[in-house]
Amino acid sequence: MNFGSDNMAGFSPEMLDALARVNDGRAMPYGADAVTARLKARIAEVFETEVEVFPVATGTAANALSLALMCPAWGAVWCHPESHVNTDECAAPEFYTGGAKLIAVPGGHGKFTAEALSGALEYAGYRGVHEAQPAAVSISQASESGTVYSVDEIAAIAEVCRGRDLGLHMDGARFANALVTLGCSPAEATWKAGVDVLSFGATKNGALAAEAVVIFADRFRGRAAEMGFRRKRAAHLFSKMRFLSAQLEAYLARDLWLRNARHANAMAARLAEGLAAIPGVSLAHPVEANEIFPVLPSPARDGLRADGFEFYDWPDAGPDGVRLICAFDTAEADVEAFLASARRHADAAA
Amino acid sequence: MNFGSDNMAGFSPEMLDALARVNDGRAMPYGADAVTARLKARIAEVFETEVEVFPVATGTAANALSLALMCPAWGAVWCHPESHVNTDECAAPEFYTGGAKLIAVPGGHGKFTAEALSGALEYAGYRGVHEAQPAAVSISQASESGTVYSVDEIAAIAEVCRGRDLGLHMDGARFANALVTLGCSPAEATWKAGVDVLSFGATKNGALAAEAVVIFADRFRGRAAEMGFRRKRAAHLFSKMRFLSAQLEAYLARDLWLRNARHANAMAARLAEGLAAIPGVSLAHPVEANEIFPVLPSPARDGLRADGFEFYDWPDAGPDGVRLICAFDTAEADVEAFLASARRHADAAA
Amino acid sequence: MNFGSDNMAGFSPEMLDALARVNDGRAMPYGADAVTARLKARIAEVFETEVEVFPVATGTAANALSLALMCPAWGAVWCHPESHVNTDECAAPEFYTGGAKLIAVPGGHGKFTAEALSGALEYAGYRGVHEAQPAAVSISQASESGTVYSVDEIAAIAEVCRGRDLGLHMDGARFANALVTLGCSPAEATWKAGVDVLSFGATKNGALAAEAVVIFADRFRGRAAEMGFRRKRAAHLFSKMRFLSAQLEAYLARDLWLRNARHANAMAARLAEGLAAIPGVSLAHPVEANEIFPVLPSPARDGLRADGFEFYDWPDAGPDGVRLICAFDTAEADVEAFLASARRHADAAA
Amino acid sequence: MNFGSDNMAGFSPEMLDALARVNDGRAMPYGADAVTARLKARIAEVFETEVEVFPVATGTAANALSLALMCPAWGAVWCHPESHVNTDECAAPEFYTGGAKLIAVPGGHGKFTAEALSGALEYAGYRGVHEAQPAAVSISQASESGTVYSVDEIAAIAEVCRGRDLGLHMDGARFANALVTLGCSPAEATWKAGVDVLSFGATKNGALAAEAVVIFADRFRGRAAEMGFRRKRAAHLFSKMRFLSAQLEAYLARDLWLRNARHANAMAARLAEGLAAIPGVSLAHPVEANEIFPVLPSPARDGLRADGFEFYDWPDAGPDGVRLICAFDTAEADVEAFLASARRHADAAA
Repeated sequence: MNFGSDNMAGFSPEMLDALARVNDGRAMPYGADAVTARLKARIAEVFETEVEVFPVATGTAANALSLALMCPAWGAVWCHPESHVNTDECAAPEFYTGGAKLIAVPGGHGKFTAEALSGALEYAGYRGVHEAQPAAVSISQASESGTVYSVDEIAAIAEVCRGRDLGLHMDGARFANALVTLGCSPAEATWKAGVDVLSFGATKNGALAAEAVVIFADRFRGRAAEMGFRRKRAAHLFSKMRFLSAQLEAYLARDLWLRNARHANAMAARLAEGLAAIPGVSLAHPVEANEIFPVLPSPARDGLRADGFEFYDWPDAGPDGVRLICAFDTAEADVEAFLASARRHADAAA
Repeated sequence: MNFGSDNMAGFSPEMLDALARVNDGRAMPYGADAVTARLKARIAEVFETEVEVFPVATGTAANALSLALMCPAWGAVWCHPESHVNTDECAAPEFYTGGAKLIAVPGGHGKFTAEALSGALEYAGYRGVHEAQPAAVSISQASESGTVYSVDEIAAIAEVCRGRDLGLHMDGARFANALVTLGCSPAEATWKAGVDVLSFGATKNGALAAEAVVIFADRFRGRAAEMGFRRKRAAHLFSKMRFLSAQLEAYLARDLWLRNARHANAMAARLAEGLAAIPGVSLAHPVEANEIFPVLPSPARDGLRADGFEFYDWPDAGPDGVRLICAFDTAEADVEAFLASARRHADAAA
Repeated sequence: MNFGSDNMAGFSPEMLDALARVNDGRAMPYGADAVTARLKARIAEVFETEVEVFPVATGTAANALSLALMCPAWGAVWCHPESHVNTDECAAPEFYTGGAKLIAVPGGHGKFTAEALSGALEYAGYRGVHEAQPAAVSISQASESGTVYSVDEIAAIAEVCRGRDLGLHMDGARFANALVTLGCSPAEATWKAGVDVLSFGATKNGALAAEAVVIFADRFRGRAAEMGFRRKRAAHLFSKMRFLSAQLEAYLARDLWLRNARHANAMAARLAEGLAAIPGVSLAHPVEANEIFPVLPSPARDGLRADGFEFYDWPDAGPDGVRLICAFDTAEADVEAFLASARRHADAAA
Repeated sequence: MNFGSDNMAGFSPEMLDALARVNDGRAMPYGADAVTARLKARIAEVFETEVEVFPVATGTAANALSLALMCPAWGAVWCHPESHVNTDECAAPEFYTGGAKLIAVPGGHGKFTAEALSGALEYAGYRGVHEAQPAAVSISQASESGTVYSVDEIAAIAEVCRGRDLGLHMDGARFANALVTLGCSPAEATWKAGVDVLSFGATKNGALAAEAVVIFADRFRGRAAEMGFRRKRAAHLFSKMRFLSAQLEAYLARDLWLRNARHANAMAARLAEGLAAIPGVSLAHPVEANEIFPVLPSPARDGLRADGFEFYDWPDAGPDGVRLICAFDTAEADVEAFLASARRHADAAA
């Protein structure tokens, strides 16, 4: 019974059908195939606007390529200190950009506010040629603390970006989880609120390994050829791309992405509700998507693990913090079993 | 009827079964899963030696990571002018190494000799700190001209490398095709002949997208941790790695890799034999694997295309050169149809 | 009357004599000359230990090369948020390292404590391959706020570094200014306290353009050949290196470096004393070297500038903060004139 | 008596005067000083056109920055196999560009023809996204073999560049030597013939350490701000830039650059003439500037060295090839002494 991460889940059965379906003989390689063409049209439809789409296989690739497009080697990107781009990619954004600088903007619960960003930018550019040039801002949606930026919060951040001519990137490794929480359209959650480039994740929510860079803003869409070179030299241009595209197509078909995310979020909500009711247990962050960060006394942690539950200690959530993640395939019975175990061990400790 | 590239083929049915089989609930991510552990043991068994194995999804990633491990940013790699690393990766090796230099060693039919290499290296290092430091040699097996290095040829090249303390990398995007031609063991074709690091390809020969860097040499195996960081920051560490590993496991199971390669090579041999018998048609290179480079008069090329055959013009093989590639799934009937069409159009032109 | 920066000063007359003296016909290039050999021996003598010495022409080059030697492309360097490497080098350390990450450790008055460093490092490495690998720590001596780390403070930071196998770099662009404040030997101020690599600055203290990377630690001295390649490919290997070395030789001869620094520090102390006595004027940071950060009411700032004094507004020192720097050639009369002007305009405003 | 390289010479006396003259108190740093402003105007005047000027201290910096401006990280630069950028900069161009590719275009005597370039480019771009994108061409003037491109030869190369939208860079480390040979104006030798960016060298011809990137072409001048960031993060923005600029100003004053180059060339011509008259001695390349590449029998080489003459063996000029370079300060008596010694030892061997 594993609550370690949504990337420990397998894939949705629809994925296998999709792979089998497009494995029908020869196809043009490197994205010149019919599946990829359909996918691009489908993403444009889902987001209700013209887009450029670059399928890749990892979230780190989507993020690093996005930031490399948005930020020169002598530029700077503002992001949350605990964001994936800042702490979980072994400096891939720095590698892909050719040495740009990520600057941390603190904020509670994995998010920063437009005000905090504005403050962090107050003297940006003051040192002229001597400093890394302000280029972009990156936010994670849902955040690494399981919270979700509201559309208004995004729009406020985007306004700060516009005022300083900074691109706005959204790391959407868990975009579907955030979207079902927001209850708005994909367009409202992204470009209508001012997002320029989205790392659109599918791997954590039912695919085998499939993400896409989705470019909304004209100024970055106009550099799609450059992005093609960047993706190729980063070794992320798949020859048999139809098998990447087919995953994303299946992901968007019949609302699979939203159904999967809704289930994961519901399981997380149930887990949060159950945990919050246990004396001595608290939640380090609001639970707004599929991640839960409970503060669990040591005996409860040990007991849960003895009962076969797997999860990570999470120092960012405090000394007794742990991280639990629900996925599209998390069984309700496992959630209830977890809660029962947690209750038992918490009682015993009390 | 597509003879454009083996990367235009789909995947072997065994792949789908393998993916389905390992999609059995939760697994540790990032390669800490049981499938990946089994794969490493299996590759060690196949190559009869201790190895480090790094699965990735593209051949460019395997090559660029290999060379980055073997060559510092201020180093140089000697390779054939038409090698994939030199001409088909949009400078990915340069990107991954941090700016190393690829130096071309010419040679007929896509290969260079130990003598040519030795000559190219004669004054390497003479300029001391002023020049890129000699670090590695890369050969393609099978080569980009469809030829195969004999074991003795590899051993001779390896001896030149040893004499100058250079690492020897083999780009094995079509390693299986070369191996069935050589008729020796995987060990004899690689580390026993002096190969230090192998890009072991599966994508072109039946996988969806799966390759592996296989490290033989102690001095590079000793830097496996560094390779782990390099793979991660290059965004090629897959979270759900079991789905990469499962492809490679299936590839090696029940000799699928060799069966697929044997079929592709046999189809190429048949095509070559048939084409060579057509007056006015010649072969630019010996056909030793699954690639054929016929010189086809323009009317024959046009006629074939009008009949629905797809293939690339290939200037490296001369003004009338084309490239045909057979894959694991190339149908004998298609080969015969191609030959019939070629004969017909060549006759008409004569 | 310019208090803008010590890099707005010219050079000490001794420099010209030294350049003339070594301009005596032909010499081996690229550092194989007698002057450079003498310089290395002299620096070893001054620091009382074996060293490797790499003369370069800018402080940014010295810092970026040092950090590139100490930190791999997938590594991280901890430094003060306002340190020169972090804010004033347009991401040169990121460029030279190939994309390493600089992580800010806050602290008052331009310095951080061993405790703050230890706290910042608490979970460093926890995310394994996913995070930039802890590699080095960099401190500025004197700091960008004009303060000086005591030998004990350095030793405490070095102990944290040793406990985690991190290299300790010192940005000594104003090392001489710090040293005369400390009143200890160069050895005590550096390697005896645990510094591994020093950017030894001369430009700001009387040279035209001359700095040196001085490597103390065995593990980094053992990689001097690598440093040679790094310097060359960064385009900082001067052909006529004797003219760089001659500046550094003159700098160290007859205590020129210490005499120049003592004068600059004395002028700064006088300025600080005088300013502190003016009602309404305060000092944002203790004055321990040659930089002063007064908080000056706007009328005083305007008045001083109207009287012909040049200096920068310095937001890091607060909304009314300015930066004044004294150099080896700052005239006592200019200091007194500045104080008189400041007093007059402060009085007028009161 | 050293004929090793022009970078083994010292500096012209005018340099010291210039440095002393501009060491007159405080000046704005980083190129915002009056000397640098004057220099820019002076270079515009000398070249009779609008230019952007970026002084740096090494030829490698000038070349690497120029190519980084002209070629993206995924681009390719065509150059002569023996060019300085290709063989003598430890892959600095690859580092500065972020991993671009240098492709060798062979040609006799250190130069390539427009035809050879055109042939090398025939299939450039054919592989689309898979190959490094054609971006620039670099030629050395004078070449590394001591020859000089005629204005017509440059114009023909420039026409090939224009036809493919490639930038044309000239490595002018010995530009003055070439110019006095051509006998035309600086404008005719550069932008009027189609050169876009010039590495304008002074170090080898009388300066201490001073070069400048001179940008002619509008499309690159329009990116001067970017060049400023590139220079800064490469650590080549000198704080006391007036001392770089002063060298270049003195270099251009009263025709010092041309006088120095004329002398060096004349000495080389005398040496060449004398050597050519010795039986058994030949010249590997025409002598058109200040470099001579004689083929000297081994006894003559040994004898010359025994007599105290210093010079390099030069394998590129053949097994018995050596390189002799004359500089602005090469004494006629030394040339005659060299010839006398060579004659004596050649006679003895005959």
